[in-house]
Amino acid sequence: MADVATPQEPIRFETHPSRYRHLKVSYDGPIARLALDVAEDKPMRPGYVLKQNSYDLSVDIELADVVERMRFEHPEVRSVVVTSDQPKIFCAGANIYMLGSSTHAFKVNFCKYTNETRLGLEAACADSGQHYVAALNGVAAGGGYELALACEEIILCDDGSSAVSFPETPLLAVLPGTGGLTRLVDKRKVRRDLADVFSTLAEGVRGKRAKDWNLVDVVAPRSKFDETVLSRAKALADATPEKKGPGVSLPALDPRRFQEGDVSGTDYRWVSLKIDGRSATLTILAPDGDPPKNAEELRKLGAEAWHLRAFRELDDALCDLRFNHPNVGLVLLKTMGDGAAVLAHDDKLFELAKTDWFAQEISLKVRRVLKRLDLTAKSLFAIIEPGSAFAGSLFELALAADRSYMKAGDEQAFIGLGAATFGPFPMSNGLSRLETRFLGAPEHAKKLAGEKDFIDPDRATELGLVSFTPDEIDWDDEVRLAIEERISLSPDALTGMEANLRFAGPETLETKIFARLSAWQNWIFQRPNAVGPRGALTMYGRPERPEFDWRRT
Amino acid sequence: MADVATPQEPIRFETHPSRYRHLKVSYDGPIARLALDVAEDKPMRPGYVLKQNSYDLSVDIELADVVERMRFEHPEVRSVVVTSDQPKIFCAGANIYMLGSSTHAFKVNFCKYTNETRLGLEAACADSGQHYVAALNGVAAGGGYELALACEEIILCDDGSSAVSFPETPLLAVLPGTGGLTRLVDKRKVRRDLADVFSTLAEGVRGKRAKDWNLVDVVAPRSKFDETVLSRAKALADATPEKKGPGVSLPALDPRRFQEGDVSGTDYRWVSLKIDGRSATLTILAPDGDPPKNAEELRKLGAEAWHLRAFRELDDALCDLRFNHPNVGLVLLKTMGDGAAVLAHDDKLFELAKTDWFAQEISLKVRRVLKRLDLTAKSLFAIIEPGSAFAGSLFELALAADRSYMKAGDEQAFIGLGAATFGPFPMSNGLSRLETRFLGAPEHAKKLAGEKDFIDPDRATELGLVSFTPDEIDWDDEVRLAIEERISLSPDALTGMEANLRFAGPETLETKIFARLSAWQNWIFQRPNAVGPRGALTMYGRPERPEFDWRRT
Repeated sequence: MADVATPQEPIRFETHPSRYRHLKVSYDGPIARLALDVAEDKPMRPGYVLKQNSYDLSVDIELADVVERMRFEHPEVRSVVVTSDQPKIFCAGANIYMLGSSTHAFKVNFCKYTNETRLGLEAACADSGQHYVAALNGVAAGGGYELALACEEIILCDDGSSAVSFPETPLLAVLPGTGGLTRLVDKRKVRRDLADVFSTLAEGVRGKRAKDWNLVDVVAPRSKFDETVLSRAKALADATPEKKGPGVSLPALDPRRFQEGDVSGTDYRWVSLKIDGRSATLTILAPDGDPPKNAEELRKLGAEAWHLRAFRELDDALCDLRFNHPNVGLVLLKTMGDGAAVLAHDDKLFELAKTDWFAQEISLKVRRVLKRLDLTAKSLFAIIEPGSAFAGSLFELALAADRSYMKAGDEQAFIGLGAATFGPFPMSNGLSRLETRFLGAPEHAKKLAGEKDFIDPDRATELGLVSFTPDEIDWDDEVRLAIEERISLSPDALTGMEANLRFAGPETLETKIFARLSAWQNWIFQRPNAVGPRGALTMYGRPERPEFDWRRT
Repeated sequence: MADVATPQEPIRFETHPSRYRHLKVSYDGPIARLALDVAEDKPMRPGYVLKQNSYDLSVDIELADVVERMRFEHPEVRSVVVTSDQPKIFCAGANIYMLGSSTHAFKVNFCKYTNETRLGLEAACADSGQHYVAALNGVAAGGGYELALACEEIILCDDGSSAVSFPETPLLAVLPGTGGLTRLVDKRKVRRDLADVFSTLAEGVRGKRAKDWNLVDVVAPRSKFDETVLSRAKALADATPEKKGPGVSLPALDPRRFQEGDVSGTDYRWVSLKIDGRSATLTILAPDGDPPKNAEELRKLGAEAWHLRAFRELDDALCDLRFNHPNVGLVLLKTMGDGAAVLAHDDKLFELAKTDWFAQEISLKVRRVLKRLDLTAKSLFAIIEPGSAFAGSLFELALAADRSYMKAGDEQAFIGLGAATFGPFPMSNGLSRLETRFLGAPEHAKKLAGEKDFIDPDRATELGLVSFTPDEIDWDDEVRLAIEERISLSPDALTGMEANLRFAGPETLETKIFARLSAWQNWIFQRPNAVGPRGALTMYGRPERPEFDWRRT
């Protein structure tokens, strides 16, 4: 089955509530209700049926969309009840026939995207005062329970049939790979032996036992379920400060796609993506003009505010790169325009963010998009040329890159540090990109806050801020050779190498999910016991039992 | 190539300096010299030649042996110079033809074992005052440089040809999987962009640049190399307290191997291993008699001291299980004898360890063996029966297990906590097994120190110390069903699941190596770009270039 059924049509990541097929969203003052009601006959591609609120990428794109929109468009919302509109089932997790008929690469990217969505939901709880409550009015199996685990509270209906379960290992010979195993023992701190029992029990755990094992926070009988859910949602909302409305709507980005000879790409307003064989160029334009003077002006700009629009575009381009351009192994990160304008916009954004929720939400969005960049399994080279704008929030791109080339000589490039460099955009490991870079020299990283001027190539080398600074004589050859060399290496080895080198320093729930859990899941996703012709994923739903190679590795 | 060339003869892990083929060891007061001089015509199995000080498992078994022996047999040693007796080459790393012709499972287990050896060497520096200095008098490539990275200091000869390198990714499409990538950015804190460049540069880095990038600590010209090495070794030795000799020699364990019908196994003095199809039983006997009264008595017992002998035997049995019994998916951990005797021996050991290096070394050895147990990719069930001795250091086996069954009823089992439970035997994550178990209830873990009496099944359940406590009516069926169910699940999924559930809490260099790095390496070790018929590992040394699938995952 492997490697035959990658969707051929490009996958698009933008959607809008008016086009949702699988989610029902309703608002009642500070409390939103987000109900899964997956249309089983509307999968992303033909070949499987989305029974029992199981999901495919199209469902998760809606979920990611609504979590993002809620933050911007519904600042009045302080708690979100996640539940199901189908009887007896909350969510059956990722659709197994979809997984069984997907390529390895698609499975890996699908899991990463769903992981990012779950983390986005946790970030909304932690950073934005939008508290997610999972109201499990039926069975939450596999990815369904993983969705619940990402919520701040889990309420399970105690009706003799509603249960939480991880049937992945016993039924499918894979892992609950969307953070499930990690969240069990690291977020909910379920005792490891109980976690072991739970993760091998296909039918899962119900009622009081689920509460005793700390798999859920509250159990409530059917008769009191809605009341319990509402009261918890209300309590969370009441404990959270209100934000001054109104919301800011997020219109479609409406990019222009093009194909010119062998080169294809996408032009957004501030971002452009150009695909050329095994490498791509991602260019971000600096803002033009002055930043908004105050919160009112920023509100007037709304979704057109430079940071918000530029980083939404970057986010979309990254998803496009991951799913629709598997042959691209290397992304050249470029910027253009006035670095001073980036710094001015950054400063104003952080100033307004102290008191204005919208500015704060924009800053948090930039943070999440930069994390998506860190987690993108493509080599990243920052190409810092004269006329570029690698300053402040755009210098984060250079710090996120695996290496950077900065042009020296008569016509040289400059870079600029700023408030964005020193804290607001932590990586998954909890450190800033600068702190991660200088893990061995934390004092140096701190002292760099004194670098107020733009920095030329010599000084950038001295400060350790860039990798190479060829001058005009060497520039073309050196950059060309670096690109050629990089795209000649095995993509798999590079994915593994970068996953190990990018995240030095502390590990967090987040890095554990993307490293330990995902790497093991990726390993298992290649094993014949799961995906071979008689593997459990392949055989699921057929009358015969899967066949396993019994050798332990 | 995969899955054809697993060695058929059982691999034995015991050796002795008199039988070393590849290492030259010499002692000069507080300084030992450990020279690699790999006999290229003496590989572990036919089919490859160990050129250029490249290694296979047989070399690493010698290395593990000498590092262990040095601690017990040569307490006078305070620094160890690791170098090469071959011209121009320090060590070329793991032999590529060996890797290319090994099964996936062997590669994975080989890397895990070599990782444990490297960590053992670091533990000797950190815990035992034996400081390893890598004297790179030639090229240190791949695993060769990884060996150096595990040393406390790295001195590189600046002669225009000696270099450090990680050619794995550029030449072989795999990772430096023996801790290399992790130690670069997390131990040596090499800047991540420089680590990226270094890890894709097949020829490596020499001289001053190696020092500037912090890949090595010192560079010295050929004329001053020996003098520099000696002076660093002497400085480390001088800064380390002396231990009162003499050493304690470690004789061969000399177990009895047996085969009775379908059941095979090994009987040691205190440990027995019985293999029965897809499960195995590992039984450890409690000590008989009183513990030694003082350091002199302990010294007289030497390698026959219960802790030392029992845990050396357990260590050997674990290596045997991993390499020679791939079909075993589940290990039942049992103990027999007098739990009070275990506690008495533990107490005396820890008391003596405060002032006696030998007692302290024994305690450290127990720590390392228990870590080897945690890292063994087999399901572990502790079977706690009447007559068992799950107390103190032996109760660690139950805490290391994925779950535990304790017999209740008229004839019931007991468990006992002790000094061993509360600190001396941290897991790879830096926490005790008890702290890891109760990550969500640290106060409870602390309060358990008050449990001085033996604990019956009811109380053990109340305290959360065991998973299940069936009585005599249910015991046989419940345990049998649990075993049958476990060995019916996919071994790969269980390996991944356990790797995620066993190590909740903080991550360390050690857990990063075994989780993030190893999991990615295992993934890559299955990818066609590395191990397929035209993959880089397979094609190495042939005139044709490898062929890659260019899709990034």
